[in-house]
Amino acid sequence: MARIVMKFGGTSVADIDRIRNVARHVKREVEAGHEVAVVVSAMAGKTNELVAWTRAASPMHDAREYDAVVASGEQVTAGLLAIVLQSMGIHARSWQGWQIPIRTDNAHGAARITEIDGSFLIKRFGEGQVAVIAGFQGLGPDNRIATLGRGGSDTSAVAIAAAVKADRCDIYTDVDGVYTTDPRVEPKARRLAKISFEEMLEMASLGAKVLQVRSVELAMVHRVRTFVRSSFEDPDAPGMGDPINPPGTLICDEEEIVEQQVVTGIAYAKDEAQISLRRVADRPGVSAAIFGPLAEAHINVDMIVQNVSEDGSKTDMTFTVPTGDLDKAVAVLEKVKPEVGFDAIQSEAGLVKVSVIGIGMRSHAGVAATAFKALAEKGINIRAITTSEIKISILIDGPYAELAVRTLHSVYGLDKH
Amino acid sequence: MARIVMKFGGTSVADIDRIRNVARHVKREVEAGHEVAVVVSAMAGKTNELVAWTRAASPMHDAREYDAVVASGEQVTAGLLAIVLQSMGIHARSWQGWQIPIRTDNAHGAARITEIDGSFLIKRFGEGQVAVIAGFQGLGPDNRIATLGRGGSDTSAVAIAAAVKADRCDIYTDVDGVYTTDPRVEPKARRLAKISFEEMLEMASLGAKVLQVRSVELAMVHRVRTFVRSSFEDPDAPGMGDPINPPGTLICDEEEIVEQQVVTGIAYAKDEAQISLRRVADRPGVSAAIFGPLAEAHINVDMIVQNVSEDGSKTDMTFTVPTGDLDKAVAVLEKVKPEVGFDAIQSEAGLVKVSVIGIGMRSHAGVAATAFKALAEKGINIRAITTSEIKISILIDGPYAELAVRTLHSVYGLDKH
Repeated sequence: MARIVMKFGGTSVADIDRIRNVARHVKREVEAGHEVAVVVSAMAGKTNELVAWTRAASPMHDAREYDAVVASGEQVTAGLLAIVLQSMGIHARSWQGWQIPIRTDNAHGAARITEIDGSFLIKRFGEGQVAVIAGFQGLGPDNRIATLGRGGSDTSAVAIAAAVKADRCDIYTDVDGVYTTDPRVEPKARRLAKISFEEMLEMASLGAKVLQVRSVELAMVHRVRTFVRSSFEDPDAPGMGDPINPPGTLICDEEEIVEQQVVTGIAYAKDEAQISLRRVADRPGVSAAIFGPLAEAHINVDMIVQNVSEDGSKTDMTFTVPTGDLDKAVAVLEKVKPEVGFDAIQSEAGLVKVSVIGIGMRSHAGVAATAFKALAEKGINIRAITTSEIKISILIDGPYAELAVRTLHSVYGLDKH
Repeated sequence: MARIVMKFGGTSVADIDRIRNVARHVKREVEAGHEVAVVVSAMAGKTNELVAWTRAASPMHDAREYDAVVASGEQVTAGLLAIVLQSMGIHARSWQGWQIPIRTDNAHGAARITEIDGSFLIKRFGEGQVAVIAGFQGLGPDNRIATLGRGGSDTSAVAIAAAVKADRCDIYTDVDGVYTTDPRVEPKARRLAKISFEEMLEMASLGAKVLQVRSVELAMVHRVRTFVRSSFEDPDAPGMGDPINPPGTLICDEEEIVEQQVVTGIAYAKDEAQISLRRVADRPGVSAAIFGPLAEAHINVDMIVQNVSEDGSKTDMTFTVPTGDLDKAVAVLEKVKPEVGFDAIQSEAGLVKVSVIGIGMRSHAGVAATAFKALAEKGINIRAITTSEIKISILIDGPYAELAVRTLHSVYGLDKH
């Protein structure tokens, strides 16, 4: 017997038929003797409808009222799934965030979970009850509903799994796992059986939209073994109820991954823009003078590369921002130009960041060199490079995105079984 | 300065534009210096959609889950109205049933309010805050959302008005008051300036669909002065903000009605069916033997008339049920025929009950005789009569409904100013 948290997103609960299909997944686990909590999102489209109403009511609205309105979507799904489960003879009840309660901080609209007392749910497990929990929401210190921000249901599921000490947190989604790269770009992409938390964090934040970054962070902190799997497969197909290796990708501690690959996956992020500041005065505090005002303008700066110029007194500073923020960023920089002191701003939009990810590269030399050589052979110009312990990110021209992904995917042998 | 509870139904909050119009009504009262609580229903159509989903999920569903799903409609409206009010510069916040809390009994789906501690809201009034309250819902003893059943928002409003000791409870609806009879039947029907609780109770339960019966009962018990008025009039039209006599109908204690009319209004209920049991054995317990099984079958028996037969040993028993329940009622009666003992069942569907209502008839003789004479002059056959202190109900053939209503409306002088 295991304790399992199952999470189903909006497309998986889009209508009553799909909710019925979700219930069959739940039934399978219950009949296998497991203790089960289910976390659900709002029916696909509902959250958008509710958000649109709050905007129509007033473009500048109270986040607490926004939360009260928008959280209703998950409340509805939880009740409907509980009804369907009961009709299948399963002892189930719905829980809203305020009933457990899932306590959050006061940052309405983008709250963080601060505490979940799992003992209440564990007691119900003991009574054979399945908990159907409205995701994306909790109770703020002001005794009002607080939502966790978009994609928050993944975070709800992982937090609940941590609180009830679940053996597994299964994130059911519209893909059947995490792939070595985007299969739309490289048809030879393979589904990973396992990926470490650290690698998944890089994959998630780099544009592999399977799981919210926050939920992966939380899973890593609490060491929650998290499965990414498909809600659209037949719930009763062979192997679906396998308690050890169900079909999908397990996100886990790296120690659990016996045969580590040097490189696990290739991620990419489109619509990057590059800004270069030429001949910046190389003095203490100059970075703060540049990036402080950008942060204040809520511009998310990503890759930062600094080269020292020949005489050592001037430097070139290159960094990337989302293409949508480029004009705003340039305007901010023009404003601080006298203070910072540089010769010119150069910028280019429509670039792509391709990243090679793998915990194995910590202990393997030459991983970066392999990438640079492979890209060079295809005539792909490298604009900037940043590296971390388990990641190499390379900025290239937009039109080469797919070619670069396929080239890197192949050169590290990811397309071989 | 007065303390006012304002209630807006589903058609009054059907979309953002109408919610904006509602907000203007609220603004008018706030700017007049009043303390204001607003109770809202779900946007028109939303409750039906939610109910349909619970039925699709399972025809036999847990009322507690039904409540969690369906109560979300009012939650959304409350949040949206709070947002619109804030955008108009009004200090407002939304409240859900569980936050105040509005305590109910455990009868999920048709709960009754057991307690509302108004002190919390009164404190907020003192801080100049408008309370926007989700109607139709409360918190059951099981710490789960309980809904009050259809039309429950009227009841919420009256209960809150009682709890905060409001000077007035304004029920905004799609009609502009209570009329002497249905204006679609008698164009000369006049809007009543005032009507007593007792009369309104008869009007409501007899088919004048302005206010839910339960809310009128509650208003009577707690002596809540309740105005029925239109949400579709221009919120800033002259007189709309009159603190004493706003346009609409005041439902109040009869002592407040100085010039009492003998007859206040004519109500009617269509689709009644008559059942007559011929030559029933006239012995103790025979009524229980007939009406007990009907009650168990959830058949709502209305008018009951019993005539003693010539020799005193047998009686004819006549009563009415809704036409929709007629076949079921006849089947129940056939089954108990051996036990009860009667000669035959006769029944007829498609009848109409017309009622003359007025507290004045308590002190005036001849009110009933006037009705009988007037109907006789029009050739309308009377099938059964029941009377109470303030009401005469007459069962007639369906096709005469409108003629009877107009005849009675005229004979009691209700069409004269």
